[in-house]
Amino acid sequence: MGDLNETGKAGQTELESVFEENKNRILGLMSAKKYIHARDEFMSLNEVDAAEVFEEAESELGIEMAVILFRMLPKDAAAEVFSRLDTDDQLAIVDKITDRELGSIMEEMDFDDMIDALEELPANVVDKVLEKSTGEERKLINTFLNYPENSAGSLMTPDYITLKKGWTVGQALDHIKEVGMDSETVYTCYVKDWGRKLLGIVSLRSLVTHERDVPISEFMIEDIVYVGVYEDQEKVSESFTRYGFLAMPVVDGEHRLVGIITVDDILDVIEEETTEDIERMGGVIGADDREYLDTSVFRHYRNRFPWLFLLMCSAMVTTYVISRYEVTLSEVASLASYMTLLMGTGGNSGSQASTLVIRGLALGEIELKDALRVLWKELRVSFLLGASLSGINFCKIYFIDQHAGGNALYIALTACVAQLLVVCLAKCIGGMLPLLAKRIGIDPALMAAPFISTLTDTFACLVYFTFATMVFVGLRAV
Amino acid sequence: MGDLNETGKAGQTELESVFEENKNRILGLMSAKKYIHARDEFMSLNEVDAAEVFEEAESELGIEMAVILFRMLPKDAAAEVFSRLDTDDQLAIVDKITDRELGSIMEEMDFDDMIDALEELPANVVDKVLEKSTGEERKLINTFLNYPENSAGSLMTPDYITLKKGWTVGQALDHIKEVGMDSETVYTCYVKDWGRKLLGIVSLRSLVTHERDVPISEFMIEDIVYVGVYEDQEKVSESFTRYGFLAMPVVDGEHRLVGIITVDDILDVIEEETTEDIERMGGVIGADDREYLDTSVFRHYRNRFPWLFLLMCSAMVTTYVISRYEVTLSEVASLASYMTLLMGTGGNSGSQASTLVIRGLALGEIELKDALRVLWKELRVSFLLGASLSGINFCKIYFIDQHAGGNALYIALTACVAQLLVVCLAKCIGGMLPLLAKRIGIDPALMAAPFISTLTDTFACLVYFTFATMVFVGLRAV
Repeated sequence: MGDLNETGKAGQTELESVFEENKNRILGLMSAKKYIHARDEFMSLNEVDAAEVFEEAESELGIEMAVILFRMLPKDAAAEVFSRLDTDDQLAIVDKITDRELGSIMEEMDFDDMIDALEELPANVVDKVLEKSTGEERKLINTFLNYPENSAGSLMTPDYITLKKGWTVGQALDHIKEVGMDSETVYTCYVKDWGRKLLGIVSLRSLVTHERDVPISEFMIEDIVYVGVYEDQEKVSESFTRYGFLAMPVVDGEHRLVGIITVDDILDVIEEETTEDIERMGGVIGADDREYLDTSVFRHYRNRFPWLFLLMCSAMVTTYVISRYEVTLSEVASLASYMTLLMGTGGNSGSQASTLVIRGLALGEIELKDALRVLWKELRVSFLLGASLSGINFCKIYFIDQHAGGNALYIALTACVAQLLVVCLAKCIGGMLPLLAKRIGIDPALMAAPFISTLTDTFACLVYFTFATMVFVGLRAV
Repeated sequence: MGDLNETGKAGQTELESVFEENKNRILGLMSAKKYIHARDEFMSLNEVDAAEVFEEAESELGIEMAVILFRMLPKDAAAEVFSRLDTDDQLAIVDKITDRELGSIMEEMDFDDMIDALEELPANVVDKVLEKSTGEERKLINTFLNYPENSAGSLMTPDYITLKKGWTVGQALDHIKEVGMDSETVYTCYVKDWGRKLLGIVSLRSLVTHERDVPISEFMIEDIVYVGVYEDQEKVSESFTRYGFLAMPVVDGEHRLVGIITVDDILDVIEEETTEDIERMGGVIGADDREYLDTSVFRHYRNRFPWLFLLMCSAMVTTYVISRYEVTLSEVASLASYMTLLMGTGGNSGSQASTLVIRGLALGEIELKDALRVLWKELRVSFLLGASLSGINFCKIYFIDQHAGGNALYIALTACVAQLLVVCLAKCIGGMLPLLAKRIGIDPALMAAPFISTLTDTFACLVYFTFATMVFVGLRAV
């Protein structure tokens, strides 16, 4: 969950350049083996920057050096830094520190960060942590580890402040003063009934602006937006963006409060979900959260091969279409050169439409019921675009390209009428396929540039050669 | 800025389906002219949902009906809903309400929301609002209107709580109780010196967990992360994601505190910036914040034409390359059919690499200095991919396609060796161009699928025909 509450706990990193300087100085001190100086510099950083320095140290000086740096941290800072590292780095650290050190790091970590770490770490590390926990804790850890990845349950923390319905503002504030230091989010407090069902919420803002003797039930908010524990994290982040919340309660099947999700975790979810969408749109499927440079060559291969292969197979259809027209092609070889232009323009036109519709769907701006409106819009836009581009292309082919044998007009006409049709077709396909995908339960992001352009290639060839054959067979007949 | 502080002020929209039902019922009541019932239902909604119902009413029942609905709202709710509508709707409302109604809406709006609205509304509306303001307010509005769009200045609000350095916790809490109801964000308070320079911050969390007689200077945080007033909003949102803040102070050139930015506004910025990136990657340049369906056909045309035109011009280079090889083509017409497959695979391979690098750059995971590492990774990945795909393709051409005249082996070899080379080339181009773009100050997102595939088309043709000519000229010589 991290440092949600304090705006400025961060170090002196007001400007990136200052941080870069600090980082380079620490790395310099480390490689000069001036550990004590390096430690002093390192400890003056905030945990976000410290985690980044650790990663740089690992990639520039090796993991040994990085772990030396890490072990210099006091245990609370170590826990904060640890929770911000990626799994490979966490594993490397776990490998090199004692069980006691690991235990104290886990103890210091915020509960949800610990769960995040445990979800990725191997079973023997999880067992070690469980061994050191009390019975109560162990049960809680096991419950949280069982929520599916990317569910609300996997994002939430059980650390929130519970108030009693009958309390006054004064009692509530006293309670917060007592437990607040440990509870991650004090800004929204929750009121539950005896069956742990959520009755209402009370914001710290309303507590500090009311007199101490006012009962909290007077201003408790009872209409609450909450999420189910198995809700997908994408839905959860949509709710946060929609309502602008700081925190949201999570309830189980019986409407009992089981935890809360805070907005800082949602920032990470949004980043993750957007990356997944963008990667899918670029034809990279199944990538995990690993950074580009940390992903092995083989994993890159595995993430990219299936889609490339599938697209190559679709392209074979185009190949087949063209091979049917080899006769036409060998007679008027210059037709081939415009074919690629046509396919390119078709693919790009389709990609534009599909990109807009995919994004519109992701933001909820376009819904399935808008399909006809999208189609009608794309038809008009594509006609305008197709006509302009074809016009330009016609002039270029007819006036600039040198075609022998009086064929120029026919070639230009064939290419340009086909282009107009292809742009219209491509835009409509590009606009409709994401909607169709959503309808049948496929991620619309897959219907982006790579797939759309491969598909429109086939249509472009079909349209073009049908036209060309008609025109040139007609010509021969004359 | 909106409803940052209260988690649950929202209405009974716990589930989307409940909201859909309410919405349809209100629209039904409106079209049945049962205004009083509709109003009661409408007023029970939270402002986020109410804004959505307004938009639906506008598109389904017309703007007249929607404005009738809007005018039923009490003025504080009207201000909240107004701030959530897009500019077209705001204009339509301004057009239909009295100056007095407009004045009271503007008065009720949060300062930053009012500035956002005024930035988009025409000058005569701005003048009307300025007329109704006091001298002090007018000066502030003018200052805020002058910050460039997408700068930190355009996102911030001047409503924050200022504490005095010498105060105790008790004094601070009393001050918050006094002004807190009006001030949007009470969770982080700011301490300034006499020259308005920022000395430190105090979180409400720390105030409620300390005794009343403790001086705030004891726990005031002095190492503060802040942003400059002209900082780009993308940088600001990066800082929020990096540090997980709820709010961040904004300072001017003399390091004086001029406002604060809160995380809920950042959620909108992230959405906006991501949409811009994705649209650019799909070849749509210069789109504004308008939703897809609200964008006119001509505007869609204007946003899409330039890039399509530019790409068509680049494709003409490919056309030229192919026209140089017309002789080869007319001799071995079946070469043409594999050309498109090659171009398709090349384009898709390049798009994958560029997508990953563009996203990596956007998230700061890849930096310019990593160029060689990216190149080396892409070289290895592309070799593996190229070899697998070429192998499959070879078998298909050699064993399945029927080629006359014993050419099968030569055609298969030509196509597959070219494919291997093209995949490698495409991946390297796709990986390097976003970095090059960043280096020379162009948005790397432009170096995505449409541009990369157009570019690799040219290379694919060059490689393929060079090979083909070599092989078949060689054959003739034998």
